[in-house]
Amino acid sequence: MSETIGFIGLGNLGLPVATNLQDAGYGLRVYNRTASKAKPLVTKGAQQVTQPADAVTTGGIVVTLLWDGAALESVISDSGFLENLGPNGIHIAMGTVLPETAKKLVAMHEQHGSTYVEAPIFGRPEAAVTQKLWIPYTGSQQAKERIQPILKAMGGQGLFDFGEEVGAATIVKLVGNFLIVSAGYSMREALSMAEQNGVDPQAVVNMLTQTLFPAPIYQNYGKMIAEKAEPFGDSEIPLKDVDLLKKTAQQVESPTPLSNFLHDLLSNDLK
Amino acid sequence: MSETIGFIGLGNLGLPVATNLQDAGYGLRVYNRTASKAKPLVTKGAQQVTQPADAVTTGGIVVTLLWDGAALESVISDSGFLENLGPNGIHIAMGTVLPETAKKLVAMHEQHGSTYVEAPIFGRPEAAVTQKLWIPYTGSQQAKERIQPILKAMGGQGLFDFGEEVGAATIVKLVGNFLIVSAGYSMREALSMAEQNGVDPQAVVNMLTQTLFPAPIYQNYGKMIAEKAEPFGDSEIPLKDVDLLKKTAQQVESPTPLSNFLHDLLSNDLK
Repeated sequence: MSETIGFIGLGNLGLPVATNLQDAGYGLRVYNRTASKAKPLVTKGAQQVTQPADAVTTGGIVVTLLWDGAALESVISDSGFLENLGPNGIHIAMGTVLPETAKKLVAMHEQHGSTYVEAPIFGRPEAAVTQKLWIPYTGSQQAKERIQPILKAMGGQGLFDFGEEVGAATIVKLVGNFLIVSAGYSMREALSMAEQNGVDPQAVVNMLTQTLFPAPIYQNYGKMIAEKAEPFGDSEIPLKDVDLLKKTAQQVESPTPLSNFLHDLLSNDLK
Repeated sequence: MSETIGFIGLGNLGLPVATNLQDAGYGLRVYNRTASKAKPLVTKGAQQVTQPADAVTTGGIVVTLLWDGAALESVISDSGFLENLGPNGIHIAMGTVLPETAKKLVAMHEQHGSTYVEAPIFGRPEAAVTQKLWIPYTGSQQAKERIQPILKAMGGQGLFDFGEEVGAATIVKLVGNFLIVSAGYSMREALSMAEQNGVDPQAVVNMLTQTLFPAPIYQNYGKMIAEKAEPFGDSEIPLKDVDLLKKTAQQVESPTPLSNFLHDLLSNDLK
């Protein structure tokens, strides 16, 4: 049996990712705020703990997949988390947080002799189940080599190394999610126009995804829009990530007119 | 030798398209406002005429590839154009015009016993040279069957039939160009943010076009942006087509918040 990994955050994406690890033979020590969500993992042998720090072992690996920077900082500040992890432990942070938050956390881990690696995930929960996730990751070379098989076992069909400077992988994730939001809203607007002019939106999607846009994003969202589903439903993730992109851009005074505009459209849609 | 085709409009796209026809064995009767542009075709045997109506023969085929609806209406109103074409002639209109303009022109052709087919082109001039154009087309079934080999000979690697109701192919073209503009501006904004945060924009493009966006648009514009070129240079085509999309949407009261916003960004960039 492979090593036992700490796993904190069993949400829509966390649960299938943790399940993949379990199915690949890893032992799991799991923590989730709503404890009942751990049940499918516990049934198959995972150990459930009652506070985040108890998921951590010295020199071991702990994964967090949390909603935002505040949730991540709260978990790390749980008494014993950093003390238990170091020395030589690795924290794989998979939620999307501000690059400046990530940099602060890198320093806190270093103080305890452990390593913070960021590895945000591209992929919906269904893609986790089918092991079709894409994962950009950043961190120290030694830590990355150690976690590569774990990221693959999580369902990562493709891993993309963005160097050692933590923050880079998060920026890639923010760019990708912004491009998804932009493509989704653009399709919704243009396909509505087509349909109201009597042109079948699915026929338009079929042509464009065979030619200019042969990309899963255009195929999937195009189909959803043609079938009158909202591309992002009532998910708050797009708004959260566009907000993070804006804040990340503001720190370097990079202008974001489109992000601002899409942020407003997303906010209105969630009201 | 195949039949002789009238060809009006030898611009950046028109010239390579006409050249493809000539190379495929078609005879050409060409008209262009700036007559000198026809020279390469004339050298290889094309007949040059001095007014649009002279490019037209009764029962024959005439192609127009003009800047906008005003230019197209001006050519058609040239004394003798419609009279020469009918009966049984076909006009293949390949420039992008308002669907309502196209519908008006359909009726004018019918009055003279000829047929108006719309066949707007997706593809840059380089794609015409390499015969990699995508062409949606709309018109009467009989006319479409007759012109299919001609559209292929023009460099159409893929033809997409959008029925008999003229206007539909133009709407597909407007949707496609709007999605291109949206993707281009989104990439420019997001990649600038990445670069100013110290992340190599080409590395971001490489990951995203291997995963979420494996589409030529993202590859080509992403590379241009990473190399500091403006995605649309000083071309007025994106602004023109977004403007046509807005007008087409207004006629059916379909809201276009993103199109309006991109229209403003494009206008500012051209100033």
